[in-house]
Formats: sequence, C-alpha cells, structure tokens
Amino acid sequence: MSEEDAERDEHEAAETSADNVESVVDEVHDRIEPDTDEREHLRDVAARLIDSAETAAKERCPDADVLQVGSTARDTWISGDRDIDIFVRFPPEVDREDLERYGLEVGHETLPEGHEEYAEHPYVKGTVEGFDVDVVPCFRLESATEIRSAVDRTPFHTQYLEARLDDDLAADVRLTKQFLKGIGAYGSDLRTRGFSGYLTELLVWEYGGFRPLLEAAANWRPPVELDPEEHARATFDDPLVVIDPTDPERNVAAVCSAENVARFQHYARAFLAAPRVELFEPNEPEPLTEADLREHIDRRGTTPVVVRFAAPDLVDDQLYPQLQKSLDGITTGLDDRGFDVFRATAMADETAAILVELAVSERPAVERHEGPPVHVRNHAEGFYEAYADDSEAYGPFIEDGRYVTERPREFTTAREFLESDRLFDVGLGAHVETALEDEYTVLVGEELTRLLEEFGTQLSRHVEPRP
Amino acid sequence: MSEEDAERDEHEAAETSADNVESVVDEVHDRIEPDTDEREHLRDVAARLIDSAETAAKERCPDADVLQVGSTARDTWISGDRDIDIFVRFPPEVDREDLERYGLEVGHETLPEGHEEYAEHPYVKGTVEGFDVDVVPCFRLESATEIRSAVDRTPFHTQYLEARLDDDLAADVRLTKQFLKGIGAYGSDLRTRGFSGYLTELLVWEYGGFRPLLEAAANWRPPVELDPEEHARATFDDPLVVIDPTDPERNVAAVCSAENVARFQHYARAFLAAPRVELFEPNEPEPLTEADLREHIDRRGTTPVVVRFAAPDLVDDQLYPQLQKSLDGITTGLDDRGFDVFRATAMADETAAILVELAVSERPAVERHEGPPVHVRNHAEGFYEAYADDSEAYGPFIEDGRYVTERPREFTTAREFLESDRLFDVGLGAHVETALEDEYTVLVGEELTRLLEEFGTQLSRHVEPRP
Repeated sequence: MSEEDAERDEHEAAETSADNVESVVDEVHDRIEPDTDEREHLRDVAARLIDSAETAAKERCPDADVLQVGSTARDTWISGDRDIDIFVRFPPEVDREDLERYGLEVGHETLPEGHEEYAEHPYVKGTVEGFDVDVVPCFRLESATEIRSAVDRTPFHTQYLEARLDDDLAADVRLTKQFLKGIGAYGSDLRTRGFSGYLTELLVWEYGGFRPLLEAAANWRPPVELDPEEHARATFDDPLVVIDPTDPERNVAAVCSAENVARFQHYARAFLAAPRVELFEPNEPEPLTEADLREHIDRRGTTPVVVRFAAPDLVDDQLYPQLQKSLDGITTGLDDRGFDVFRATAMADETAAILVELAVSERPAVERHEGPPVHVRNHAEGFYEAYADDSEAYGPFIEDGRYVTERPREFTTAREFLESDRLFDVGLGAHVETALEDEYTVLVGEELTRLLEEFGTQLSRHVEPRP
Repeated sequence: MSEEDAERDEHEAAETSADNVESVVDEVHDRIEPDTDEREHLRDVAARLIDSAETAAKERCPDADVLQVGSTARDTWISGDRDIDIFVRFPPEVDREDLERYGLEVGHETLPEGHEEYAEHPYVKGTVEGFDVDVVPCFRLESATEIRSAVDRTPFHTQYLEARLDDDLAADVRLTKQFLKGIGAYGSDLRTRGFSGYLTELLVWEYGGFRPLLEAAANWRPPVELDPEEHARATFDDPLVVIDPTDPERNVAAVCSAENVARFQHYARAFLAAPRVELFEPNEPEPLTEADLREHIDRRGTTPVVVRFAAPDLVDDQLYPQLQKSLDGITTGLDDRGFDVFRATAMADETAAILVELAVSERPAVERHEGPPVHVRNHAEGFYEAYADDSEAYGPFIEDGRYVTERPREFTTAREFLESDRLFDVGLGAHVETALEDEYTVLVGEELTRLLEEFGTQLSRHVEPRP
C-alpha cells in the first residue's frame, strides 16, 4: 500500500469512527441523563433539606450558611445516583468542638431518622425519599489553602466547577464518569484507587470534553502533569498529577493507581478504535463454577494457596490497604522461601481471603547455605567448625573459593509455612494480624472450591483477568 | 580465661602441634623419598637415554645438545614416579620443520619401541625398564622470553630451580607435592586445575619450605601475588599469581582454580591444627551403592537429571573444558526455564554424564509474559492485539501499568527440555554437541542408578562433597 493510500485509509477510518463515537455517545447520553421528573424531585428534596438545615444552623450561629455540594449540585450526576450532600459552613472563629456539636445538632434536625458517622468530623447521614443524604459541618474560609480538614475544601471545588461547567461539559462529565464506571476505574476509595468525581470533572474541563479527553489519554506518557491554574507549589511522584485549582500543593489524582491510569488509556484507545455501548457498562463476571475452578487449576498447573480469616470490621478505606499490605507481606514471605509467586489477589466480604497462586509450592528437603570465602580465616574457620560435625548437613565443601553447606530446609511446602508461626514475621496489616491470631484456615489447590460460595465473582476475576 | 592464659594455651598448642608436624612429616618423608636403588636405577636409565639421544641428535645437527628436565632431573620426584623427560635442544637457526623431523628421528632412535604423540610439537613417547620416557625436541634460546612454544621454556625452569633447591628444599618439595596429591589439588591439567610441579617448587623455594608455605597459605588473602625475581611485566586476574622467574609476562599459577587455592588453604589450616598422615593420602571414596543413592535422593528431596552420551575421544585437557562448558550451558538452559539448579557435576569415562541436581524440576503449564507499558502506544497496541484473541493465553491484563499475559509454557518438566532440540541452543562444547547429535539419554531421579556401575566413585563425591 502506498503512503497516500495509507493516509487516505486512516482518514476514512477516523471519519467512520467519528460517526460511531457520535451515535454511541448519544445512546449512552440518553440513558444516563436524569430526566425532568428526576431532576425536579431531587431539586425539591434538596431545597427542603437546605431550608431546614439553614434554619437549624442560624439558630445556633447566625453567621452560618448552607450549601449543596457534589455532583447533584453541579448537575454532573448520573440518572439513578441518589446522593445529596449538604454542607453547613460555620465561620472560622467558631471552636472546632462547637462546630462539631452544632453540626451534629443541625444534622439530626434536618434528618430526624439519620445516624452519626465519622470521617474527619462527625456528621449525620440519613435517607429522605430514597435519596442518601449527608449533612456535614465545615469551616467557611477565604481560600482552600487555609483549610483545617479535607471537608473544608469541598465547597471550593463546587464553586470552581460551577463557574466553568456549562450544560455541554456537564453532559460530558456524566459520560466520562459512566465510562470510568464501565471500565472499573471510577472512585477514589482505597479499594478502587481510581478517578474521583472531582478529578473527572477537572479532566473534562481541562481537555474540553469527553472525546478530547479520551484522545489525549490514549497518548498519555505518564507522568502526566496538568495544572489548570498554573500555580503548582509542589511536585508529585504519581503517574497522573492534576494540581488542585483551589490548592497549589495538592494532587487531585494522588490516589489514582498506575494500573487505573493504564486501564483508562487502554479503554480510551479501545473506544476510539471501536466505539461501543458495552464499554460504559460495568462488567460483573459470572461467579466461577466449581467445574470451571477445577478446570482452571488443572489447565494452569499452578498451586493456589489461600489464607482465609474473619474479615476485620473496618470500612473499606481502612480494610483494603491492610489487605494489600498483608498480601504483599505474605507473597514476600513465600517468595523468600523459594515458593515462587505467580499472581495474587485479596478479597473480602464476611471473611477475607488472601489468594496467592504459586508457580512453585514445594522445595527440596535441603537448601544451600553459603558461608564466607575460605580466605577470611576467622569467619571461615568458625563456619567450617559449625557444620563439619553436623550430621544433618551436607558439606561444608568449597565452591568458587567459599564454604557451602546444604542444610535441612525449614519449610518444604508453602502450606507448612502458611500454617506456621513464621507467617506472623511478615508485614501484615494490624487488624489482619489480630484476626489471624484469632483463627485462620489455609486452603491449597482444589480446596479453593470452599471459597466459591462467598467469592465466586472475585475468583472469576482472578482466573480470567481483563485489562 | 584471662588473656595471659589464652596466650599461654595458644603457645602450648603451637608447641604440641610443632612436635606433631615434625613426626608426621618424618613419617611421610620416609615413605616418599626414593631409596638409593631407585635413584641409581633411574640415573642409569636416564644416562643411557641421554647418551643415545645425544649421538642421534649430533649426527643431524652437530650443535644440538640434550638435557634431562622435570622432577626426576631436579630430584623432586616422589618414590614410585616413573617419568623421565629428555629434551633435545636445537639452535634457533634450525627451521621448525627440520626441528620436528630431527626430533622424531632422535626420539625413535632413542626409544625404538616408542610411538609419536603431539603436544605443541610432535614428540616420541615410550617405556624403558618400567620408566615412562618422553623425548621432546625444542629450541635452545638465550632467554625464556624468546620462546617459540611452551616446551622451549622447560629447560629454563630446570636451570632456575637446579641452582636453588638444595636437598632439604627438594625433600620439602616432595612433601608438598604429596600433600597436594592427598587433598586432590596436584596437577595443572585442565581436569584438576590445581598446582603444577613447577609451581609447587617455586612456592617451596619462595616460602623456604613445606611448613612455612602451609603457614603462609593458611593466611592467604587472594589475590596472592608472588614475584620471586621482582620483574613482573603484566598483571593477572587469578586468585594466585606467581610470576615465572624465567618470564616476566607469565603467571605460573594461571590454571590453578579459586577452588583449589581455597582447598589448599583449608587443608593447610587443617594440617597445622591437627597434623596427620592421612592428609597426604589421596582419598578415593567408596563407590556409591544403589541403596545409598536411593537414600540420598530421598533424603535430599531434589531431582537429579542426567544427560549421558558417549564420551568424545579426546585427551583430558580437551575433554574436561568441553564438559565444563556443556555443564555451564545446560545449567543455564535449565535455570532460564525456571528449573532451579541446586548443584551440578560432569563426569567421564567410557560414557560422559552431565549431572544436574534440581531444586525445581516441574513448572506450571503457564508462564508470565510481560509486555510493554500501556503508555508506549505502538508497542502496547501491537502486544495487546497479538494476545487479545489468543485462546491459549490468559489476559492481556494490566499490572503496574504494563500489559501481562500468561501463555502456555514451552517445557513444564526438565526432562522435556533436555529431550528437546532446544538443548542444542545452549552453549555446548563442540565435540560434546557432536556426541549428543549422535545419541544421548536423559535420566531422572532414581534412573540415576544406571550410572552406578560406571560412575560409583564420582557419584559418591557428588552426594558427599568434601572440601
């Protein structure tokens, strides 16, 4: 094919693709745009809640005010989302203790059925006409750089974006969020470590829409650094850096993992090459069947081992980092003992399970133990004498000028190691360690079928991983 | 124990040890010193051979001369050694072709029953009254630095040492040689890679005797560099460097392996700490029995694998380097495929066997295959497309920002690899490769019992290695 032909083909392909993008985007857009009824219902409920919160707040502090924040405030919410976030702002002269007390009182008056939760401040959470409502107290500050806790920053984000996202961009934010949900990269919780709503909005604003964002992402070469306000006052080591327009020292994408950045790039290319609605639909795989699990174990020839225990009673943002730490510790502990790790996953529900798939699950009864070079006389003599009469050890003999012995190995199977106290020498999350001290089970090979009832879907994801 | 006590104890220990050294040395000395009859017999035979060679040489080249070299010339031979080396020297103006022709003619006249062999020149070898006699032609040069081949150097070595080794030192050379034989480190052939006779003589001369040499060696910190004539004109990377007194650019110990240097250090310390005659006696272990082999395989839990083939018809100095190269190639080939090597040995007699003891002899059916980082768009897209529709592969999925697939592994057992053509991709010695192309057998685990008849002793050494 000549260069001209190639160029023409590419051009035509781009045009076809453009048409397809258009039609797919329209279809998704229609699905996720809240309709007039939904909008009005939300607007009514939000207005009543704001009124009620305002009355309660001003009774306690005449200078307080109330505002709605988050995606339902910025019209970037997806049809079916039911979150209303009401922030009650107190002037900075108010004591932190008073703020917390007022906040809870206002919350309870606004949401008589609500209950208290605790993030950085305590706040009140409740349900009103099917909406999940948070009433959160914060300080009203001049600038986001003066904030005393993370929630104080939220009103600044809302202000910044409200001024910039017109209806078209808001629609593109919805599309982008849905796309990120579809590919499993939406959410800045520490389980997902993906793209937050605020980050998504900034990216759409910065690149000027859904499609330009995808086209840019398809060619990203991390680290990608964006600074909409050109005011960065810090550097970051993350694959994606988006300097907060309201805080020059903060990377909005700090929590977003390299894996999710790569995933977004992968699916951006996949979408641009072959636009299709399915990419916007979260893909929950079918739970693995027992027959499939056995078949995969057989086909792969690896040895899966599992440490299973009662899931610590923690919120996901605390639980998953601990599971990840424990997973890292256990894989290192196995690898260090010659049990080569192939791939590993942590999963949690009622119980938690650390699944490590091993390429090598058995080792010989002996292991090499290298001593000092023979010429380092003191050490060498000590080493030689220590093993010369050890009937359990082979050697010492000499290799490349060093003494070497072969000693009985502490663990010849991965199961022995996992069932031993040495498991507690690896880095475990604190609550995971406590749970293991209480009780745990080791499963090996086909014993994994015992996980199917609780973790069928997660096991599907493990054995058939996708980008 | 106080420091003074410790010093006194050490002093006493040294004295006791000194007495023991004396008596052990005397005993060994008596055994290895040739008696008057043996000496006279050798002297008679040598004199007759020299006469005969001289007559034959001068007939062809009036300016030729003949001399005896080697340990029997320098009186450093051990009782029972039967080597007489006769060198026929021609002036340097003689053509190399003439030298070779004259040399063979003189050899055949001197040793009518002899046969030709080939080192750097052809020469004649034969047996006379129980002695192994070599008649070797060489050039007579002004200095060893002008030599045209290695044999030309030998007369210079003899001259150098004859002038320096008195009877006491000659006796200590015999002791040292016997000690090196006892510990298996004597001989500069490429199978042993130990201490040559000339090197032994230089070390005894340099340190002033057997005992001072052992005391020095016990404390060597390689690289050890000796230069008796202080005339080195080159540097060397060997653990032991002894600059040839007759050639400033040559390391006499070049062939001596780090293992043999360390072995000499080890046994030097062992002898000084507890002098005993047994150290002077080569220790040939009992051939391994079938029951012992099975027991060791069981106790060690490793998987021994063997490649066995007809031993190439080569002299040891050519065969063993090729076996070593093949051993290295095969161990690397196994290691690269995940079959972790524990220890390996090459052995040869009628057949040759490369024995590799494996810690891991089986691998899963799949292997990880890491692709490019997702952000390197061209490569990444190519990689993804290559595997996305491959029903044999798992993935591609994303880990740490890279594509990863899991593909069927080429070999899941070490035997499969060893029995495949890929064995010929590793670095093999040329003649070993030819032999394998012809035919070879792979033995695994208890099939090793088939080696016992031919290699019982070598297998003993492998399973019970000593310094």
